[in-house]
Amino acid sequence: MKPSEFADRHIGTTTDAQRRMLDVIGFGGVEELMDAAIPEVIRWHGALDLPGAASEAQVLAELRELAAANTSAVSMIGLGYYGTHTPGVIRRNVLENPAWYTAYTPYQPEISQGRLEALLNFQTVVADLTGLATANASMLDEGTAAAEAMTLARRASRSASNVYVVDADTLPQTINVIATRAEPLGIDVRVVDLADDLPEAYFGIHLQYPGASGAVRDHTGVIDAAHAAGALVSVAADLLALCLLRAPGDIGADIAVGSAQRFGVPMGFGGPHAGYLAVRAGLERSLPGRLVGVSRDADGAPAYRLALQTREQHIRREKATSNICTAQVLLAVMASMYAVYHGPDGLRAIAARVHDRAATLAAGLRAGGVEVAHDDFFDTVLAVVPGRAAQVVAAAEAAGVNLWHVDDDRVGISCDETTTRAHLQTVWSAFGVAGVDDVAGEVALARTSGFLTHPVFSAYRSETAMLRYLRSLADKDYALDRGMIPLGSCTMKLNATTEMEPVTWPQFADVHPFAPRSQTRGYERLVADVETWLAELTGYDAVSVQPNAGSQGELAGLLAIRSYHRSRGEAHRDVCLIPSSAHGTNAASAVMAGMRVVVVACDADGNVDMADLDRRVQAHRDDLAAIMVTYPSTHGVYETGIAELCAKVHDAGGQVYVDGANLNALVGYARPGTFGADVSHLNLHKTFCIPHGGGGPGVGPVAVRAHLAEFLPGDPLRGDGHAVSAAPHGSAGILPIPWAYLRLMGPDGLVRATGAAVLAANYVAVRLREHYPVLYTGAKGLVAHECILDLRPISRASGISVEDVAKRLIDYGFHAPTMSFPVAGTLMVEPTESEDLAELDRFIDAMIAIRTEIDKVAAGEWPAGDNPLVNAPHTAVSVSADEWRHPYPRSVAAYPDGVDAARKYWAPVRRVDGAYGDRNLVCACPPPEAFAE
Amino acid sequence: MKPSEFADRHIGTTTDAQRRMLDVIGFGGVEELMDAAIPEVIRWHGALDLPGAASEAQVLAELRELAAANTSAVSMIGLGYYGTHTPGVIRRNVLENPAWYTAYTPYQPEISQGRLEALLNFQTVVADLTGLATANASMLDEGTAAAEAMTLARRASRSASNVYVVDADTLPQTINVIATRAEPLGIDVRVVDLADDLPEAYFGIHLQYPGASGAVRDHTGVIDAAHAAGALVSVAADLLALCLLRAPGDIGADIAVGSAQRFGVPMGFGGPHAGYLAVRAGLERSLPGRLVGVSRDADGAPAYRLALQTREQHIRREKATSNICTAQVLLAVMASMYAVYHGPDGLRAIAARVHDRAATLAAGLRAGGVEVAHDDFFDTVLAVVPGRAAQVVAAAEAAGVNLWHVDDDRVGISCDETTTRAHLQTVWSAFGVAGVDDVAGEVALARTSGFLTHPVFSAYRSETAMLRYLRSLADKDYALDRGMIPLGSCTMKLNATTEMEPVTWPQFADVHPFAPRSQTRGYERLVADVETWLAELTGYDAVSVQPNAGSQGELAGLLAIRSYHRSRGEAHRDVCLIPSSAHGTNAASAVMAGMRVVVVACDADGNVDMADLDRRVQAHRDDLAAIMVTYPSTHGVYETGIAELCAKVHDAGGQVYVDGANLNALVGYARPGTFGADVSHLNLHKTFCIPHGGGGPGVGPVAVRAHLAEFLPGDPLRGDGHAVSAAPHGSAGILPIPWAYLRLMGPDGLVRATGAAVLAANYVAVRLREHYPVLYTGAKGLVAHECILDLRPISRASGISVEDVAKRLIDYGFHAPTMSFPVAGTLMVEPTESEDLAELDRFIDAMIAIRTEIDKVAAGEWPAGDNPLVNAPHTAVSVSADEWRHPYPRSVAAYPDGVDAARKYWAPVRRVDGAYGDRNLVCACPPPEAFAE
Repeated sequence: MKPSEFADRHIGTTTDAQRRMLDVIGFGGVEELMDAAIPEVIRWHGALDLPGAASEAQVLAELRELAAANTSAVSMIGLGYYGTHTPGVIRRNVLENPAWYTAYTPYQPEISQGRLEALLNFQTVVADLTGLATANASMLDEGTAAAEAMTLARRASRSASNVYVVDADTLPQTINVIATRAEPLGIDVRVVDLADDLPEAYFGIHLQYPGASGAVRDHTGVIDAAHAAGALVSVAADLLALCLLRAPGDIGADIAVGSAQRFGVPMGFGGPHAGYLAVRAGLERSLPGRLVGVSRDADGAPAYRLALQTREQHIRREKATSNICTAQVLLAVMASMYAVYHGPDGLRAIAARVHDRAATLAAGLRAGGVEVAHDDFFDTVLAVVPGRAAQVVAAAEAAGVNLWHVDDDRVGISCDETTTRAHLQTVWSAFGVAGVDDVAGEVALARTSGFLTHPVFSAYRSETAMLRYLRSLADKDYALDRGMIPLGSCTMKLNATTEMEPVTWPQFADVHPFAPRSQTRGYERLVADVETWLAELTGYDAVSVQPNAGSQGELAGLLAIRSYHRSRGEAHRDVCLIPSSAHGTNAASAVMAGMRVVVVACDADGNVDMADLDRRVQAHRDDLAAIMVTYPSTHGVYETGIAELCAKVHDAGGQVYVDGANLNALVGYARPGTFGADVSHLNLHKTFCIPHGGGGPGVGPVAVRAHLAEFLPGDPLRGDGHAVSAAPHGSAGILPIPWAYLRLMGPDGLVRATGAAVLAANYVAVRLREHYPVLYTGAKGLVAHECILDLRPISRASGISVEDVAKRLIDYGFHAPTMSFPVAGTLMVEPTESEDLAELDRFIDAMIAIRTEIDKVAAGEWPAGDNPLVNAPHTAVSVSADEWRHPYPRSVAAYPDGVDAARKYWAPVRRVDGAYGDRNLVCACPPPEAFAE
Repeated sequence: MKPSEFADRHIGTTTDAQRRMLDVIGFGGVEELMDAAIPEVIRWHGALDLPGAASEAQVLAELRELAAANTSAVSMIGLGYYGTHTPGVIRRNVLENPAWYTAYTPYQPEISQGRLEALLNFQTVVADLTGLATANASMLDEGTAAAEAMTLARRASRSASNVYVVDADTLPQTINVIATRAEPLGIDVRVVDLADDLPEAYFGIHLQYPGASGAVRDHTGVIDAAHAAGALVSVAADLLALCLLRAPGDIGADIAVGSAQRFGVPMGFGGPHAGYLAVRAGLERSLPGRLVGVSRDADGAPAYRLALQTREQHIRREKATSNICTAQVLLAVMASMYAVYHGPDGLRAIAARVHDRAATLAAGLRAGGVEVAHDDFFDTVLAVVPGRAAQVVAAAEAAGVNLWHVDDDRVGISCDETTTRAHLQTVWSAFGVAGVDDVAGEVALARTSGFLTHPVFSAYRSETAMLRYLRSLADKDYALDRGMIPLGSCTMKLNATTEMEPVTWPQFADVHPFAPRSQTRGYERLVADVETWLAELTGYDAVSVQPNAGSQGELAGLLAIRSYHRSRGEAHRDVCLIPSSAHGTNAASAVMAGMRVVVVACDADGNVDMADLDRRVQAHRDDLAAIMVTYPSTHGVYETGIAELCAKVHDAGGQVYVDGANLNALVGYARPGTFGADVSHLNLHKTFCIPHGGGGPGVGPVAVRAHLAEFLPGDPLRGDGHAVSAAPHGSAGILPIPWAYLRLMGPDGLVRATGAAVLAANYVAVRLREHYPVLYTGAKGLVAHECILDLRPISRASGISVEDVAKRLIDYGFHAPTMSFPVAGTLMVEPTESEDLAELDRFIDAMIAIRTEIDKVAAGEWPAGDNPLVNAPHTAVSVSADEWRHPYPRSVAAYPDGVDAARKYWAPVRRVDGAYGDRNLVCACPPPEAFAE
């Protein structure tokens, strides 16, 4: 076996191509380049202690072994995770389709209309089923959605109280995540039995509907009382139950949260799934996360885009309401398509079948003399068997069915779409009862309002029609399967098939997160491997994969710092230093962790201003909690002062948080845990090949040095208020991806990838710098793995904006680089190691051609208001219109220099007018007439 | 469980839609329609004895059980089937991608450029590696390719001899298939040891290279002798071996045949794989099967298309050289992409690794005192162990490795890309030897000529680049995932994901066709189920799934009839009556089965002319072998005379062959085996959901009544000259598809599907008949499952041809119906049951709009030589050209009436000039300059 044959597939540039690139930038070899680029002060010269590279066939074989080490059992545990049938057409054509999973977050709406439509469908599903005005797309899970609802209530409530009431019949992991989030914010969480008296004053209340115990309670009285107290009401509701039950909005809820998992998304040992959050009218502008809305394009045609500027760059730092950025787009798309495929009648029928099963189960238990705790339930039956719970659960498990072991006396059994009569029989046997014939259930609090009346939910009944709908949406979008997505800071590298395939194997997909550990040996080994390998790569001592997005990783890391200081009696340390170049999420996370943000300036070269740092450290010597920096910096540079920075902060008693967003520039060459940092979060969806999925899933493990290890996230079921996600290992279902990547690359492959990424960025920088100034470089004139092209002087001279360039790139067949982040008026380009030289050159040539176009505008050859740049992107409809009144020919619009007609990508809409949509906010499926011409 | 929930997904029209359609055609219900449409004389009123419908989840669970009943073993059996690593990017994005597998045969080249390019790559791979001028794309397997080479040699040889010499070291199944094909043609096959003297005279010789025994022999002398004798030389060569060995063309072969299986195509228990056939310059116009060539489009741009009119309709009936139509396109695409991905260096490296393994294996055996039969080999080692073969094979099998049990004294062991040192160790242990360290092999007869020098074979080294290449090709093509493919006689229905998924499960994909039966229990049950269920559906007594295409099913059926007559001492019965409306393949098959074709006329209504039938039967009373009819007829009508026809032929001692191409109109309503036929072949790729794969794979089981059962195809390894395919169960690897379809639909679902298909065809006929005359209808003015639209009067009046309409349909977003078959100047439309009403209406509306356009030409509004019809299809390049000189606006060209711009499909080339390409035949990858502007 050759060393990492896979690395030759993963890395786009061949040895020969790299030689040519090195010639252009004036280096003799990749190692020479890396020696020059990376400051010696951080350079790590060790050898990675990771298993050697294995072939793709070998890795698949090993993963099959891990998969086989998970026991296939039927899980009737409930607690927010349910068996579901993923329709094959959705599994194959969404979850297993690179056109969907390799797409980026839809910040460029013109080339994202397909998934934006799917997400609008998702929002419509949630809004309709919850009976609320506006839903976002999407949240990370039910637990974090509930916590976000709490802070939303805090912002919106007119109550002065600091008390947040939580229904005792809430999912235990939700209570834990709420508690984790409440503590640093000083919110007093009171878990109460709703039958008891509520506190006198409180700003919000969280209700579970149906309850974790399965009980369906009429919450009207509690809701009215809460409103009378000036509190907001958040209802955690099960979407499938809502097909039969009165909608939260119909009974007065202000907010609804929950999970869309059982809408066709596999359990995956806890995730990823799409959480949701919906609000009543009047609260939509307080929604956290991303919201899709309808607007119009330059021709006045309807077009979708993210509403209200809901993108990372717009997270308002310390004034942010939430730190959530990456959502669960791929899973939200799946859930929305499940609803599209089944339609309202199909969903009602599924819900009714599930309820009938539960009713039959309960009738059988009662007939056998087993007490059933609640008369009204949807899918979950709580059986009371004093002293016998363990025995019943064990008997069922032995027969292949997992139940919820509530306590010594009670057992919970949840039915779902996959439950058969045979399963009921197994459960009855475990209880020692005989069972009964099928019973037709009837829910208490039956729903009266309709849902999913929009035609999209009844147009695609046949698999053929569904397949074509999915393809037509995918065809509108630009993803990695079409070409380069040269985003700064987002590392859009190859998501290899071998990494992806195991995700949909049933032994990984169909595992409940709370299944007995004896059944999840394969997953436990996988998680342990990933955590161990990531620790080795980063030089830290302990890693937790629980955070299911980078934002959650940040929070977990900062909470660890917070806990550390408190454990040492230094609870007063609450200042978090953040450089002005930082990602907005950093500041938002710090605030959520109960810290005060103090900004440190950057110098003219884009580096942290060490003098300003000294001043800030001095000023906050006694209350300094941490500094949070990204490395290499968000300016795409290996700052040489990093070790000194770490030392200064440590000297003042602070901890050093290194944001791992740019780890792709370090792997194998430098380790944050070794060069001075105490904690980092990583983005497995950047450096470690989890696909972006059109805006999620992400995984954001937190890595710490030994002194912080005890403060890593805890088990969400244990109830110690230390969980940042609902599931113990977060989005465990996609951990086979980084596992496979690391196993395939081996230490040598990983080092080669880093070198190739840095080489590609420097090649782009050198070839483009005479056309667009490169804003920042390191000490030796080199960039790290990305570079910032400064458009500001060009824009001033020509009137052509960075947005015009970004949109014109669409005409050339590219996704735009990151726009105006971290510096307004610039483009940040990260080519990654996976692009080959032909594609890099195609991009560079397009940028040069665009520069020539800009010059024509500047020279007055084309009017400032009517040229191919300001009119970009051009649609097929626009270039084939009967009339053409522009001063440039159609061919320039459609097939500018270097565009291969045979591979032409057509944007489906022209430039989207975001402001119009924000003024006229529409965030559910528009009526079909909106699309009439 | 509801009865067949799946049927509601498979059938496009809802109950409500069907009601509206029935209103249009004037019937009260589907049953009423079917009663009227189907002649009572053939109507079967029984209930199908099939298992009731199961849900998709249930069917997947059952298939997992069947899969688990196949043992996963390492097969080193060889004999033409080898382990191979399918690159994940190819598996996921070709084999598992509806854009590739739901495409039709590329008869409409303008919308098939992607797969035509892939097939041209395949032809280039084969031509380069074999060193011959021209290769086709593709053959059904190596055995049938070898048989086709024999008949090609017969046609091309100047020798008067009837003798065909076959190298004794040929794969046994190939010898068997050759013998099957030779016997009816009176060819005298002589299997000879090449070391012995050859016959004095012979017209051709078949050589295996390397031999089945693994021996690599220098065939130069034999080839020179054959040429001296006026014989043609066919060499069956292993493509991987040819990466190292001298090419057949370089040593004088006229023809090369073989299999491309080990180029990334799973063994699948015997198929489907792409066979190949290549010929030296001068023989290209004698090639059987489909040949892709380069031509140009209306704008002069290079464009691919099937060369030399190689389509079913052009099979020249009894003058045909072969009956092959459906090929193995999907698998040829995979094999070609394997070559594109690895490139010449990668292939050489793989071949060298395989050879090194074999060399190491042999060295270890010899070191342990085991005799190795041949000094020169590529991948297969023949070990001589007198009296011990069974014991060695058993020991290896017990350790998980299958070997080839040649005879009592010899064991064959084949290495392949998947062979590891651990496998060698297992083999050595089975022989009781210790083994040796790795040895570097060196082949005898080393190749000197280069191969795969075209840039396409080195441009896509990284997975990212490969993914984009595959997507860019898929995007050029129109398949069922975009819209309707309303072909007459080809039943392009849903290929459901649940049917497709099991095909790529390793337990189905990685099974050798000659693995011990104890390891293939799952497959055996699957095959038995499919055969039993098909017998029940057709009313026959026995079925064989061995024929791996409809053409092979025809041949197998006719051979059964031939054998039957001979078994009764009536060998002189050799006349096969065939109606003039028949598919050309029928006559070609009859000739191949040694029969004389006598054509029976059709009457003015398109039915078999019963008076003419009487005359023919009378004239051939004593030598009548069979009649071969299609039912419903190729005219799309349920002929009422079928029972009478059967009786007349039976009276005269003939057998009745009903071509099952149109079985989709009968399932559940009529059974050929019950209404009078003796034998049929079915097309599992039409009626039973195997996807067309862009022109294959197909499966063509033969079904017979009891008296013919003993004459069904035999085991190809048994050597009784009765096999029609190389593998015992033909393309067993895709039998999970029809199995799943039948299991999912159940008897009720199948009946509903037939009704929905007939309803859809009649709805199309009624709605279109005032715009286009419907050529033939049955007794009550109804059609069966398809209808023929007669364009001839319209063409006469307007000058607009049926081709113009077909190409204009592309502009409207449709694949054309079948053109000029079975009647020149007509279009035949088969909507199938899977299209929904919206899509049916979209098609009908497009056809009506086109009629309006034709009328404008007829009225002189648009000139005959310059209108949207004759200029169709319009590309995006053409409608956005700077100049526009047509008398109709661009918008009419690009977005004619009713076309949804959001779903616009753009043909990548304009009308292809087939004649130009035939005059300038280029059938390998053209130099890149050909595409320069």
